[in-house]
Amino acid sequence: MALVVQKYGGSSVATAERIRRVAERIVETKKAGNDVVVVVSAMGDTTDELLDLAQQVCPAPPAREMDMLLTSGERISNSLVAMAIHSLGAEARSFTGSQAGVITTGSHGKAKIIDVTPGRVRTALDEGSIVLVAGFQGVSQDSKDITTLGRGGSDTTAVALAAALNADVCEIYTDVDGVFSADPRIVKDAQRLEKVSFEEMLELAACGAKVLMLRCVEYARRYNVPVHVRSSYTTKPGTMVSGSMEDIPVEEALITGVAHDRSEAKITVVGIPDTPGYAAKVFRAVADAEINIDMVLQNISKVETGKTDITFTCPKSDGPRAVELLTKQQGDIGFTQVLFDDHIGKVSLVGAGMKSHPGVTAKFCEALADAGINIDLISTSEIRISVLVDDNELDDAVRALHAAFELGGDEEAVVHAGTGR
Amino acid sequence: MALVVQKYGGSSVATAERIRRVAERIVETKKAGNDVVVVVSAMGDTTDELLDLAQQVCPAPPAREMDMLLTSGERISNSLVAMAIHSLGAEARSFTGSQAGVITTGSHGKAKIIDVTPGRVRTALDEGSIVLVAGFQGVSQDSKDITTLGRGGSDTTAVALAAALNADVCEIYTDVDGVFSADPRIVKDAQRLEKVSFEEMLELAACGAKVLMLRCVEYARRYNVPVHVRSSYTTKPGTMVSGSMEDIPVEEALITGVAHDRSEAKITVVGIPDTPGYAAKVFRAVADAEINIDMVLQNISKVETGKTDITFTCPKSDGPRAVELLTKQQGDIGFTQVLFDDHIGKVSLVGAGMKSHPGVTAKFCEALADAGINIDLISTSEIRISVLVDDNELDDAVRALHAAFELGGDEEAVVHAGTGR
Repeated sequence: MALVVQKYGGSSVATAERIRRVAERIVETKKAGNDVVVVVSAMGDTTDELLDLAQQVCPAPPAREMDMLLTSGERISNSLVAMAIHSLGAEARSFTGSQAGVITTGSHGKAKIIDVTPGRVRTALDEGSIVLVAGFQGVSQDSKDITTLGRGGSDTTAVALAAALNADVCEIYTDVDGVFSADPRIVKDAQRLEKVSFEEMLELAACGAKVLMLRCVEYARRYNVPVHVRSSYTTKPGTMVSGSMEDIPVEEALITGVAHDRSEAKITVVGIPDTPGYAAKVFRAVADAEINIDMVLQNISKVETGKTDITFTCPKSDGPRAVELLTKQQGDIGFTQVLFDDHIGKVSLVGAGMKSHPGVTAKFCEALADAGINIDLISTSEIRISVLVDDNELDDAVRALHAAFELGGDEEAVVHAGTGR
Repeated sequence: MALVVQKYGGSSVATAERIRRVAERIVETKKAGNDVVVVVSAMGDTTDELLDLAQQVCPAPPAREMDMLLTSGERISNSLVAMAIHSLGAEARSFTGSQAGVITTGSHGKAKIIDVTPGRVRTALDEGSIVLVAGFQGVSQDSKDITTLGRGGSDTTAVALAAALNADVCEIYTDVDGVFSADPRIVKDAQRLEKVSFEEMLELAACGAKVLMLRCVEYARRYNVPVHVRSSYTTKPGTMVSGSMEDIPVEEALITGVAHDRSEAKITVVGIPDTPGYAAKVFRAVADAEINIDMVLQNISKVETGKTDITFTCPKSDGPRAVELLTKQQGDIGFTQVLFDDHIGKVSLVGAGMKSHPGVTAKFCEALADAGINIDLISTSEIRISVLVDDNELDDAVRALHAAFELGGDEEAVVHAGTGR
């Protein structure tokens, strides 16, 4: 008998009818002889409705109360799923994050899981019950206040519970059929991946693949929890995220897939004195503002001799703040100007086989060149190549790389609308 | 500095606009130099909407999950009120019933409060914060599951907190201006009562006065918590429920008011052998089915000589079950037939002065006789007279008694729509 943790997103439980369907799938898993723990997000639009209510009573709601408000969404969806399971003749008990022992830091709205002590969950399982746990939420270790985990919180809750319960697998049910070789909305013949190593999934998530949040993959990798990404609308096999890329035979899986990201902006600091320490000042200024930078390039200034230009990317939302910060310190750092460009896109090629196969970078650049796409900036890791291109050319770049590395399949990718958290 | 506990019903927080108004009243109370603890019910229709959702996923939802579902309603309203207070520049913290230390029995849907350990509430107050506590809910002492208190639960939560915190007063904000000498919807010149003793309020509540639930008054009396019933729409003084009727000077307050009740049905068991023990069998049968009986009359059978008839009243909803039970035991008890009548109403006159003033019963019966109203059944307590009449004549009976005992005032009673729990 296996212990299975399942997570269903908000779109999977958006209506009473969908809740009943989810309940059927859960009961099937139980009847197949498994212990089942289920993490459910808030129903479809609940969160937006609650946020709207909050805005109506308070322009800037305190984070503590916001968490108290929003966590009621999971409480509703989880108890409803428990009821639906009950009506199918099975026993189910729902628990809040706090009751399930999800202990977090105290930073409301973006708390981190410190520990999971699932004593009550374990007891309920031992008594033969299906257990539901409200995702996205926990209880602060210090204040005992209710907290939320922020984006991707429910996935993280599921993986954390799977780790704490030593589950055999954590199934993440979503509105796509799994992890694809590229975004099916851009590449028609994008192929579902049967198996992806943790390292590759980390790179894909970090490079903009939306199917799994980075923090969730990091958690799964650290505790070695196999994550099975599946569609809640079909019974297709989905994608298994597990194991180290070291385990993958070299002859297969040269390249895993193409990821893209439109969420970044490019900042260029022009005419910095080409003397040790000045570049550091730039990154220190940005780091002190807690702005994450991604790609970095330093080169001889095109405009001023004896000077250097530094280019980096950061989240679009942080861009203006970064520019403002740097401009403030123009005198101290001594550059001539700051350029801001948010019409860029990042396309990345990820594959464990890359490191043992020379020529991938060359082929990568040729593919983009043949498509007439200009490369702005390059960064690489052992198993990834990322380049910055004009955002109007991003989709073409994704398609060009996907074709050049022959990642296409014949299975037609199904795309559903829907969100989750 | 006083400690004030305030309770607001669901209609008082039905919209964002009303929530802001409630917040203003709370902040005023705080600025007047009081410590303030607030209990808020779920917003207007929230509970009905959740019940509807539950019905859609499960015809007979398990009580435990129902409590988990419904308690989210108070969680939402309380955090929203806390936000609204915050936007007025005051500090507020909301707690679930469990966090506030409301410990109950494990009977889901109708749990009883065992104890209140408001440690976190006290700490928040000491730190200068306004405290909000989700009404209607608690946590089971044994299973640590979330429970609900059933009808009137939020009022009881407020009174229980007031008792545990040794508050100076518990203010119950509702959609009427206070406790009236009769239902203002029936009696135009019904008078708001300034002060009512616990005993009188108990009788009024037990006789159908809706403004306060019986259990809440019982709790307030046991712990001697002054309860101030006020309108959340006006700043009128309302009604103070406190003290023993012994404290009321005999010369004033002969009669407090008239209450009426349409919720009961009348059952007559005809032709019972007039031998000791047979009547007992009737009441045992009903008692074993946990049906509460109210008024009782035994008299010589009109139809059969040497036999006796027994008439009693019970909640309309239990009527059919009672009839079925009795019919089953007709052979054993040996009566000839069971009559069921749910077209009856009960009208009651309550007043602490009653016991020391002879002739009240006479005047009572004369008033109804003058109005041409036939009395079916009479029961009395030290401070109450109740009679059963045809439900078509109930309103006339209320008006006749209200007039006969000169309970009318000049203040025009305002009636609002609205519910609460």
